Amino acid sequence: MMAAAAIGACAGNFTKYVNPFIGTGAIEGGLCGNCYPGATMPFGMVQLSPDTHPAPDWYNASGYDYNDSTIYGFSHTRLSGTGACDLIDISLFPTTTDRTSSAFSHEQEEAHPGLYRVELLDEGISASLSATERVGIHQYDYPAGHQCRLLVDIDHSALKGSWDRQIIQGQLRQVAPNALAGYRWITGWAKLRKVCFYIEFSAPIRHLALSDGHRQEPGQVINGRALKAWVDFGQMDQLMCKVGISPVSWENAKENLQTEAPGWSFDDYVAQADAAWEQQLGKIAIKAPEDKMTTFYTALYHAMQQPNLSSDCNGQYMGADFTVRQMPEGQNQYTTFSLWDTYRGAHPLYTILDPERSRDFVNSMLDHYEAYGYLPIWQLWGQDNYCMIGNHAIPVVVDAVLKDIPGINAERAWAAVKGASLTPHPNSPWQVWEKYGYMPEPLQTQSVSITLEDSYDDWCVAQLAQRLGHDRDAQHFGKRAKNYVNLYNEDTHFFQPKDENGHWIEPFDPLCHGGNGGSAFTEGNAWQYYWYVPQDVAHLVELTGGAKAFEQKLDQFFTLTDQSGEQNNNVSGCIGQYAHGNEPSHHVAYLYNYIGKPEKTRALVARIMDEMYDNTSSGYAGNDDCGEMSAWYIFSALGFYPVNPASGQYDLGIPMVEEAVISLPQGGEFRIVNNLKSQKVKSVTLDGDKLTTLFLPHSSIAPGSTLTWK
Amino acid sequence: MMAAAAIGACAGNFTKYVNPFIGTGAIEGGLCGNCYPGATMPFGMVQLSPDTHPAPDWYNASGYDYNDSTIYGFSHTRLSGTGACDLIDISLFPTTTDRTSSAFSHEQEEAHPGLYRVELLDEGISASLSATERVGIHQYDYPAGHQCRLLVDIDHSALKGSWDRQIIQGQLRQVAPNALAGYRWITGWAKLRKVCFYIEFSAPIRHLALSDGHRQEPGQVINGRALKAWVDFGQMDQLMCKVGISPVSWENAKENLQTEAPGWSFDDYVAQADAAWEQQLGKIAIKAPEDKMTTFYTALYHAMQQPNLSSDCNGQYMGADFTVRQMPEGQNQYTTFSLWDTYRGAHPLYTILDPERSRDFVNSMLDHYEAYGYLPIWQLWGQDNYCMIGNHAIPVVVDAVLKDIPGINAERAWAAVKGASLTPHPNSPWQVWEKYGYMPEPLQTQSVSITLEDSYDDWCVAQLAQRLGHDRDAQHFGKRAKNYVNLYNEDTHFFQPKDENGHWIEPFDPLCHGGNGGSAFTEGNAWQYYWYVPQDVAHLVELTGGAKAFEQKLDQFFTLTDQSGEQNNNVSGCIGQYAHGNEPSHHVAYLYNYIGKPEKTRALVARIMDEMYDNTSSGYAGNDDCGEMSAWYIFSALGFYPVNPASGQYDLGIPMVEEAVISLPQGGEFRIVNNLKSQKVKSVTLDGDKLTTLFLPHSSIAPGSTLTWK
Repeated sequence: MMAAAAIGACAGNFTKYVNPFIGTGAIEGGLCGNCYPGATMPFGMVQLSPDTHPAPDWYNASGYDYNDSTIYGFSHTRLSGTGACDLIDISLFPTTTDRTSSAFSHEQEEAHPGLYRVELLDEGISASLSATERVGIHQYDYPAGHQCRLLVDIDHSALKGSWDRQIIQGQLRQVAPNALAGYRWITGWAKLRKVCFYIEFSAPIRHLALSDGHRQEPGQVINGRALKAWVDFGQMDQLMCKVGISPVSWENAKENLQTEAPGWSFDDYVAQADAAWEQQLGKIAIKAPEDKMTTFYTALYHAMQQPNLSSDCNGQYMGADFTVRQMPEGQNQYTTFSLWDTYRGAHPLYTILDPERSRDFVNSMLDHYEAYGYLPIWQLWGQDNYCMIGNHAIPVVVDAVLKDIPGINAERAWAAVKGASLTPHPNSPWQVWEKYGYMPEPLQTQSVSITLEDSYDDWCVAQLAQRLGHDRDAQHFGKRAKNYVNLYNEDTHFFQPKDENGHWIEPFDPLCHGGNGGSAFTEGNAWQYYWYVPQDVAHLVELTGGAKAFEQKLDQFFTLTDQSGEQNNNVSGCIGQYAHGNEPSHHVAYLYNYIGKPEKTRALVARIMDEMYDNTSSGYAGNDDCGEMSAWYIFSALGFYPVNPASGQYDLGIPMVEEAVISLPQGGEFRIVNNLKSQKVKSVTLDGDKLTTLFLPHSSIAPGSTLTWK
Repeated sequence: MMAAAAIGACAGNFTKYVNPFIGTGAIEGGLCGNCYPGATMPFGMVQLSPDTHPAPDWYNASGYDYNDSTIYGFSHTRLSGTGACDLIDISLFPTTTDRTSSAFSHEQEEAHPGLYRVELLDEGISASLSATERVGIHQYDYPAGHQCRLLVDIDHSALKGSWDRQIIQGQLRQVAPNALAGYRWITGWAKLRKVCFYIEFSAPIRHLALSDGHRQEPGQVINGRALKAWVDFGQMDQLMCKVGISPVSWENAKENLQTEAPGWSFDDYVAQADAAWEQQLGKIAIKAPEDKMTTFYTALYHAMQQPNLSSDCNGQYMGADFTVRQMPEGQNQYTTFSLWDTYRGAHPLYTILDPERSRDFVNSMLDHYEAYGYLPIWQLWGQDNYCMIGNHAIPVVVDAVLKDIPGINAERAWAAVKGASLTPHPNSPWQVWEKYGYMPEPLQTQSVSITLEDSYDDWCVAQLAQRLGHDRDAQHFGKRAKNYVNLYNEDTHFFQPKDENGHWIEPFDPLCHGGNGGSAFTEGNAWQYYWYVPQDVAHLVELTGGAKAFEQKLDQFFTLTDQSGEQNNNVSGCIGQYAHGNEPSHHVAYLYNYIGKPEKTRALVARIMDEMYDNTSSGYAGNDDCGEMSAWYIFSALGFYPVNPASGQYDLGIPMVEEAVISLPQGGEFRIVNNLKSQKVKSVTLDGDKLTTLFLPHSSIAPGSTLTWK
């Protein structure tokens, strides 16, 4: 059939390796990445994908669970890899009757970058989905001789009540013989979102039935809170729908549609999406065993699904204070900043592969700062949901400035970084921080994790101050960056919570996990947080008692399997206490480098790449977390990883790839040649010069350079 | 003291007669107008007034009740005379301690147009309020030697939970040494409102303490749902605050402030407001007994408190679909359309006194139509709350077009009027209307009231169709305009509910009142709704059985005191079954004219003016309903009233005034000379020509004309 033909025609050298079903559902007791298989463009506004639950929530946060067998509609927005659910806007469902869901089977389902296809088994309707950046493209093939109907469901959303989610007001109206438009305001994980849409059909509407909950309205417009439309087109074989969306207005949604999706060839949209992904994925051309190619390119695909475009074609976007603002020509606003996750690996990766978008990400954060008063913690559809801890927009902004990413005003960045570090806000009580030199429990819950992570952010602030010559600030934040020391217990050799009087809080169990409040640790235990001093690993080694003690502690970490402590469900993918399923552990395997034991780093990194990633629907050891699990893999597979993501250097591990060529955005290539026969490394050379440390400076990733392992 | 001096200096020839306490509270078992005593400009965006309840609701809808003795803050927006409460945004309260309320006494309180002053007795703080169109002006005189503090309360609102009211998200931040800014999104009677503010103080902030519910935030910004700021200024005698508001952005609120309120002289603002009111009230210069002057000018003052300006100084406004749009140069957007009330008298009055604003009101309704899909029913802060029945934007729009108010595109108006009459929406199921020729109960509740009122609206549509040459539409809507006949029971001589099968619904009690649903009648009974055929009173006379039967029925109406039926609390101010306290009765006293008994009209109108209005806090017989009770008085006092508000003519009653001079907006004057010695009228002459009917055509209200009663 057509879709299959299209794939055959379009699947590129790189996109052919992507398996969008990886991470979409837990099988055999595994863990779920919470990814989705639907159609999206790199960093696009639209994520058009099936919802296999009528109201997705925590355990099917992307709307899709590979273990499900029913589809409840195809909606246009979602998060990839998060623990919590939101978005899930504007659902379409084709039927010949009044069904609002259908069975489906993985046997009659396929997914590729920019194309999703499924057979809706109840009625034999074939649904094909594609997308441009801001427009969802639907093609529905109906069985011959049947009435062609469509449910347009504006009431469909993530679970109502969860996060106090409710729709406040909306509109749905026919604006042309073949077009519907409208909007909804919804409160949820994001405090308040305006979602606007413009839907164009390939055929005129024959009959429209609007409703607001139980209220039926036979006209062409309805205003209310629970809006749906049954749209009848008469007898046809095929219907195409194009759905432009916008956070600003339905007029902008229409303009987005007219700009990006004027035509009616579904194949062309699939080809365009494939080409866009091909161009993105092709930025890293690797040689590797076939199954590793799939793991690698799917990880790269997942890492490039967000941050998400949030400005319209005309440059308008909804500011964090709900004021519509205008982007400078040639720049875009972005959202979906899962920063506690993505500052570690994903954002550094973007600085290498896509500095222009890195500029836009950073400038979007600075815009947020100016509208909101502090930098985003976890930004969703332009709003902060304050998920997790720290202020990890800071390392992202500082890293980009220090790497001289063009188009970022350094003093504007400095104002934001400093302002966010001095303006108290939820989980960042700076007056407490300045007074005590640590976060006291329970005055500030998650105190140990926050103390460690804020110390790191402060180190980043100090680096930027130093670069810009703000010496007093550099000194001040440099001092704050050492606050972690105040929670180091030299008797137990753990970071432990203290109360306001400076007393250790007893009892203390380093195996006991905290969640998201009510404990000194965040989604982890004292073992996992022990290692979080990326800004000064040498000092951590010293605190631990020197290199040997540090090595023993690391060895113990990777072997101590005791899970007697209270567990947190984000802790998974364990090697001893190491939990690859969640971010606090991600840099730890690389720490052996710091005591001259790179062979142990190599063994562990190779093992994690091998054990924690596969090509099934449970292919991740935990939530992909907006591409962070993927970014770890991409870096590690290339042979390096940023233990300190704002340091301007990467820590050497061991390459999975046989060869890799990174096409640099400024032109030219950076090449990685892996001549290793085993994990035993004789030398790593950069253009023939042997690296004398276990770091690869960012500046050495330059056109024409070659990193050779042997 | 200063404020008193200012009043002496400014109180004008007309403003001196205004008593803003009229209608502010029920005394001695009377009824409440739900008016407020605070400061506002004619048709202004800001209504700055004390709230005497911590969370106003139904029975103190303007925020103020004359019977209360505690003030809980001075907030910037409110409705005048409505039954339900909303708005009540951005409250300020001055203190030297941490008090958040204070006792007050009417002994130490005064109010004039553009000035409100009260002594906060708990601490001896004198609060003086004034306003520009979009800016509230506060002056607080603190007792000597005390700390000068202010509570800025963004959480203060009409009662939460009522109408599902809740704040969704907001921001409060310091944006200059002496300025705060922010916004809140709130859902309530209006489905969703963005209220933005910019507050400038006459002194720098010494200390700021922000909170979001129980969360304290010591910095300069807070985002959240329940925001307050304690602002300390140190020891001072006097603090001035200027509060700009906007429905679009805090930047617009700031621009509004800078445009309208650059200076720091409180007296100047009072003088400006007084001058603005003087100019408005002076449009009708009357001679009358002193106490009637107060009733009249206070009514005129109340009638000109709304509709309310809703576009910013830069012309931006928040559309009904929450898209920010731009007004054409020189035009303003308005909101607060309590149309079931105000189409009767207030809007016709505006066409005489202020055709430029009438144009803006109508164009605002047309903008609403285009964004929303149908014309507003009851529009509040740009949103429809669907309060009451009918589609009475239609008579307002049609009246304005038929009166040739400049600046209204007639075909655009036609598209809206026709569209609203064909597009089903809440309480307007046109498919039912077209099918049955009446609203069947209980398929559409309030069926008799809606049938009568929709018939009238349809008559208006037909008039406009005819004017514009849309003959088929004129015919169609002309037919619909007669639908009222289908609910006339010739056996009982009442309009009665029918079911879907055309059967009268039994039992039927013409004394039984309905409320706002669940009955065939809306806030009234069959007696009160009997008279609602303003488009064809002659036919109603005929249905009743001729002139004599009609007279008897009217006589019975005004004498039948039996209140055995279920009561509605909007029914008050009764003369028999006539209830001047609510709008359905308002035209009935004028109906004797139609059977050649004008003397009975005169007697009743004079009696109603005399009995139903006085100069106390319970000076209205019911809610003022956004100036409609007032508009009835103004018209009637001048000697005429529009029984059919879109007919282009007014029905003669009897003037209360001894003389009146209406300064016409197009220049020149229209004069009313009352030489009556009693209610006995020998002649009414227009420029010497005797009027041969009991109608005064709108076109005769022309410069230089004189209407003489003798």
